[in-house]
Amino acid sequence: MPEFPCVVYLNGKWLLHQEARISVFDRGFMLGDGTYEVISFYEGRFFHFEDHIGRLQYSLSQIDLAFDTSVLEKLCEEAVNRNALTDSDGAVYIQITRGIAPRQHAFPASVRPTCLIYAIPVALGDFEKRQVTVKTVPDSRWSRSDIKGISLLPNVLVSEQARKEGVFEYIFVRKGMITEGTHTNIFFVKNNILLTHPADHHVLSGIGRRVVLDLCKELDISFEEKPVSLSELENVQEAFLTGTTTQITSVIKMDDIIFNEGKTGTITRKLQQGLIGLTRPGYFV
Amino acid sequence: MPEFPCVVYLNGKWLLHQEARISVFDRGFMLGDGTYEVISFYEGRFFHFEDHIGRLQYSLSQIDLAFDTSVLEKLCEEAVNRNALTDSDGAVYIQITRGIAPRQHAFPASVRPTCLIYAIPVALGDFEKRQVTVKTVPDSRWSRSDIKGISLLPNVLVSEQARKEGVFEYIFVRKGMITEGTHTNIFFVKNNILLTHPADHHVLSGIGRRVVLDLCKELDISFEEKPVSLSELENVQEAFLTGTTTQITSVIKMDDIIFNEGKTGTITRKLQQGLIGLTRPGYFV
Repeated sequence: MPEFPCVVYLNGKWLLHQEARISVFDRGFMLGDGTYEVISFYEGRFFHFEDHIGRLQYSLSQIDLAFDTSVLEKLCEEAVNRNALTDSDGAVYIQITRGIAPRQHAFPASVRPTCLIYAIPVALGDFEKRQVTVKTVPDSRWSRSDIKGISLLPNVLVSEQARKEGVFEYIFVRKGMITEGTHTNIFFVKNNILLTHPADHHVLSGIGRRVVLDLCKELDISFEEKPVSLSELENVQEAFLTGTTTQITSVIKMDDIIFNEGKTGTITRKLQQGLIGLTRPGYFV
Repeated sequence: MPEFPCVVYLNGKWLLHQEARISVFDRGFMLGDGTYEVISFYEGRFFHFEDHIGRLQYSLSQIDLAFDTSVLEKLCEEAVNRNALTDSDGAVYIQITRGIAPRQHAFPASVRPTCLIYAIPVALGDFEKRQVTVKTVPDSRWSRSDIKGISLLPNVLVSEQARKEGVFEYIFVRKGMITEGTHTNIFFVKNNILLTHPADHHVLSGIGRRVVLDLCKELDISFEEKPVSLSELENVQEAFLTGTTTQITSVIKMDDIIFNEGKTGTITRKLQQGLIGLTRPGYFV
């Protein structure tokens, strides 16, 4: 795996990553004024591509950034092809910013958005074997976590804290209720019911999150979109994280609370097997 | 005034603005992982340069970004000189990001920070003649507004709303208390006492804000660093904004409340004259 992707799409050109440069006056660089998506692919096949593009359209509309997303499918496929990843697992990164203009907070009068796309290999196998520890932290972010914006400094600082402390992820808590992780959604099993925070303005409507809720219907697992409070954790039997590259990752410890005696729980296992069935068709045949 | 500054400093080089480009993998572009300062100059002389650098050091320390700020004074002077602004009013912009690395939230292992500096002319005269209208909005930003970070999407969206509605600035309200504007601090006069939000984590410790508090001591104006609630506005006699290029701008209307019958108040006037004395020495001689 190269440290950097080899070939990058930037505003109509395919460039070596070393040559992919943008103006310092790009509003992405000066103001964090843009949005992004990360789309996984399994053996070269995109997973829920249209859902990711739909969410990108939502983010773009929420920040009032006009961009024609119909061009993206071909470009993402080309990013995979040009980097010789057609048989690999990996992820495509798409970033759209408002473009280049003299610095001011309000939108510039007329400006062409900046579009960046690249694909990298990511190890997506064996996620069902992973068992991770997480910690909680007050949710210090802005109140629109449903927008997948590139103004990620709050997430960066909390992720660095997690790295330093050797935990997989920090989970945000707002007014005593658990919202989501820095780059994951979180689920809990309590009394055989799967619980996760509603997809309101305080959490990202994760594609992995939606896949899990769909799998619940298919597998007859009861679920509620209802926030879990810190004080309920004592009564939680299972927990897991979802995310584009996190997939479904079992959480065995949260702060000082150990779930299911440190083992991945039954409902988590069922959902993981369900995800494998969706991402690796024929795997169990 | 050029639409863009002509000559820009970027990581050791002076470049035409069109040629000042950074990698798309700069963490400033992908994650909003950086901090900035805007320093005004009057007829080529910097105003409170050391205070701005001190605040930059504070922001850098809060986001754990190691950067030697001792190089900045010469570079800022050179930015003014190279753009032929030594006799002009204007502002220098400094931006430091964590540098270039493969995208991940947590800090990369070893990376060289990116440093951008440029100077532009700004009309700083006659601020005392300005009278503006502002509106209030719930404070949706993260809880560390004391850090002058480049992850500014929340400020961008609210500033655009202000531009659309034709008001000078939107003022944030957190739990019923007025914090600050999208790029200004706000002051109120109530019963002859000047009030402004304490410089805690919810507001930027503005240099203009500090200058005003110093002027209060010099001019025998009573002040308290105490938040003002929305419900107190009916009893407010004067209001003004401070900021590096906003200077001291009189607010005559906030939402539906008109202050001092739409005229700039006495205490505001005194402070504006005080600021003119500091920024234009000899002006009244």
